[in-house]
Amino acid sequence: MVTIDAKTRLCALIGNPVEHSLSPAIHNAAFQHAGLNFVYLAFKVEDLEGAVRGLRALTSIRGASVTIPHKVAVMPYLDVIDPTARNIGAVNTIVSDGGILTGYNTDASGALAALRSAAGLPEGARVLLLGSGGAARAIAFALCMEGKISSLTVLAIVDQERNALVRDLKEKMGAAVTGSPLNDDTLRRNIPASQVLIHCTPVGMSPKVGETCVPRPFWQPHLTVMDIVYNPLETQLLKEAREMGCRTIRGIEMFLHQAIAQFELWTQKPAPATVMRSILERKYQ
Amino acid sequence: MVTIDAKTRLCALIGNPVEHSLSPAIHNAAFQHAGLNFVYLAFKVEDLEGAVRGLRALTSIRGASVTIPHKVAVMPYLDVIDPTARNIGAVNTIVSDGGILTGYNTDASGALAALRSAAGLPEGARVLLLGSGGAARAIAFALCMEGKISSLTVLAIVDQERNALVRDLKEKMGAAVTGSPLNDDTLRRNIPASQVLIHCTPVGMSPKVGETCVPRPFWQPHLTVMDIVYNPLETQLLKEAREMGCRTIRGIEMFLHQAIAQFELWTQKPAPATVMRSILERKYQ
Repeated sequence: MVTIDAKTRLCALIGNPVEHSLSPAIHNAAFQHAGLNFVYLAFKVEDLEGAVRGLRALTSIRGASVTIPHKVAVMPYLDVIDPTARNIGAVNTIVSDGGILTGYNTDASGALAALRSAAGLPEGARVLLLGSGGAARAIAFALCMEGKISSLTVLAIVDQERNALVRDLKEKMGAAVTGSPLNDDTLRRNIPASQVLIHCTPVGMSPKVGETCVPRPFWQPHLTVMDIVYNPLETQLLKEAREMGCRTIRGIEMFLHQAIAQFELWTQKPAPATVMRSILERKYQ
Repeated sequence: MVTIDAKTRLCALIGNPVEHSLSPAIHNAAFQHAGLNFVYLAFKVEDLEGAVRGLRALTSIRGASVTIPHKVAVMPYLDVIDPTARNIGAVNTIVSDGGILTGYNTDASGALAALRSAAGLPEGARVLLLGSGGAARAIAFALCMEGKISSLTVLAIVDQERNALVRDLKEKMGAAVTGSPLNDDTLRRNIPASQVLIHCTPVGMSPKVGETCVPRPFWQPHLTVMDIVYNPLETQLLKEAREMGCRTIRGIEMFLHQAIAQFELWTQKPAPATVMRSILERKYQ
């Protein structure tokens, strides 16, 4: 790994739990490959205010990744919030400029980058989003703010959360958004008219790797399908979509692209994407 | 260096300035050699209270080294102070046990260990200490608490600081201590009756490497002489003492032994002293 000296800068993961995070492996490999005098460490945090105070006071800290359960709660402690992160209402990345802390949301930009790098987001696309939690919310705002889509349909089981998301997207973005419960009926009705489907629920995540919320016969080969679940690398949902002829984008692409965006915010250098992807793939193979 | 993952623990140097510190090089080499999943990073700190709040909240932090100007000011923010550190009135090491912070002073124990490992501190020794600043104070208390010496004489130019040190040693330790100004006259008078001389002023430190506060003809071959200045490795004072037949102990031995004591407090494992010494020697050769 990198050789540490008195000028080494730190990027910190702040969350709870953090002990299974792959971010230290990815970012440290990237820093080393780029020849940058940075290290990345994970910190389990309960006292969020104290942790942010520490980010400011420990001046070698260049920034942080923020993960569950702190993505929303961290916002009042920051000095500046990027407009995308403010609309989403969540921050997953902090940059410290001499103790001035700015919050960003690279979950949002990472999802768009993953779609675009796979040529999976044509201009004017009609997008179907499954789920309405934090990740769905970040992706939905990114699509409506910067995705140049023509319409978005949100299917999700938690009515209150889904309704709030649809309302916020309409009010803040003026977007063409509709919402419905997530079930076989709404899936069957919405899939034919959509070009892109993004799965943002936890269904299919290890250890329940056999589960999927889209019945196999519903898949149609004109669809591009992205899953945000990245463990396993190819979820049951992606496997069936691929077998039915869809173009598929794995969850690690989004995870990778949010990490790339963090790296570039902290270092102001291009991230070594190939190195970072290979760390992720090795981990889940 | 070490391979960092989500379970890596951090030890932090807290001071101002810190950018020329050798502690990151020494401790990281030691962690790596011992196969421990720890890293050591330096942090320039002005907001000391915020930094200590961060030490507690960022729970991967196992401890800290505290250096100028924070060794005294940090004490009110800690939960427990080791008795030696409390008597000295300064902390250079913090150990975090699940956010409970205990302060130690390994400058003190390091000086004793350096003297003892060179067989330079016979039981019942009469010791002459030059200087009355923070390092002199730590060493004086260590000698009186644990050094089994028979008497201590402090020669120093700052009357108020020297008088406070002598008074504290008498009141808190009941030690046989006397103090006088530091000049040729007091040196000439006190050297013959002393067995050990410890130089704790900054005289002779790089770049003023030709300076010494003990005139060459005063040295007597029965003396053991330790210098806390470690840059250069052999100060003018040590060089002349050695040439006049004294046994000499270099400042890096004290620096090394305070770092060894820190390593062992944080990791609860024996420190790889040879590796740590070689890093220091390489740096100053």
